[in-house]
Amino acid sequence: MKDRLQKQLDFLIEADKLKTVLRQTVLIDKSRRENDAEHSWHFALAAVVLHEYAAKENVDLARVMKIALIHDMVEIYAGDTFAYDEPGYADKQEREARAADRLFSILPDDQSGEFRALWEEFERMETADAQFAAACDRLQPFINNSMTQGHTWAHNHVTSDKVYKRMDAVRTAMPELWEFVENVIRDSIEKGYLLP
Amino acid sequence: MKDRLQKQLDFLIEADKLKTVLRQTVLIDKSRRENDAEHSWHFALAAVVLHEYAAKENVDLARVMKIALIHDMVEIYAGDTFAYDEPGYADKQEREARAADRLFSILPDDQSGEFRALWEEFERMETADAQFAAACDRLQPFINNSMTQGHTWAHNHVTSDKVYKRMDAVRTAMPELWEFVENVIRDSIEKGYLLP
Repeated sequence: MKDRLQKQLDFLIEADKLKTVLRQTVLIDKSRRENDAEHSWHFALAAVVLHEYAAKENVDLARVMKIALIHDMVEIYAGDTFAYDEPGYADKQEREARAADRLFSILPDDQSGEFRALWEEFERMETADAQFAAACDRLQPFINNSMTQGHTWAHNHVTSDKVYKRMDAVRTAMPELWEFVENVIRDSIEKGYLLP
Repeated sequence: MKDRLQKQLDFLIEADKLKTVLRQTVLIDKSRRENDAEHSWHFALAAVVLHEYAAKENVDLARVMKIALIHDMVEIYAGDTFAYDEPGYADKQEREARAADRLFSILPDDQSGEFRALWEEFERMETADAQFAAACDRLQPFINNSMTQGHTWAHNHVTSDKVYKRMDAVRTAMPELWEFVENVIRDSIEKGYLLP
């Protein structure tokens, strides 16, 4: 078999491990924690369904879907860093950069470069595509939290200022969804799922 | 909140259930069965990585990714029908059409129509996009089987003629991958993972 195809198949085989990286979020039926592969699928689906709310006009949905599919793959080696874990964020960048080197280099050079560039674009959150992608990435667990009595927040004693800060990506990239976000946060504080 | 956005959020909430629909395929580490959401993610990723092998030149990767994301969602209500379960296939079409009516109608009319049309296009396997998508959909569990001593085949006493028939979508839509497919099938028969 050609070397190029073998590298691509090796990458798809390694990718299977994303299904075993667990996140803090639980499924809406609360049966178990969600994994990165499921989250990536749900994030990509959210991007398709909510594309019309992108604040910037030039958001390329195909690029956003690609970003969604690969955005967490470095966690196969670097592990999931919980969004509200400040010590964990200290060396996150370095751990993930090393993981990206290792993972994307499985692919042929051209694809390795494309995937690495998409991942870095997402991490920097500067382009319209990356900002819309970041908003969808944060919205998906937010929806699950809103349906599970703020499971992740309550379980980790998260305060509302941190949720506001994290969800700011939605306020700027999908302003029409901000009312929904604010309502959920207010309601969650009222019910004691989220610390004020 | 506007009625349109509420419908879209309701759909994303209902979509979470896809994470609980189990397939016959197991993860490559054999720790558990795969679910439909993970499979959809892996299928979409395979489409991105293997796009260059599409036999037809006009395959639209963005449409194929959308198909991947939604192609199994009817199984939220209709359940997963095992690819080699002939009695199960008898009423599959009817069950899934009813499920599609129920699921996609959660969305606003325009999106409901778009998703339903994409799903039907995939099921019919007539367009270049649907044929490439079908090849990726079959290739993903085939790769997992090739890495798990033919787990699904051995467990269900599947014969090689049925695998050849099912994988024919790869032969026609991604002919350059056929050598890999044939080698895995031959090797699996030799090792007793697949009945000749």
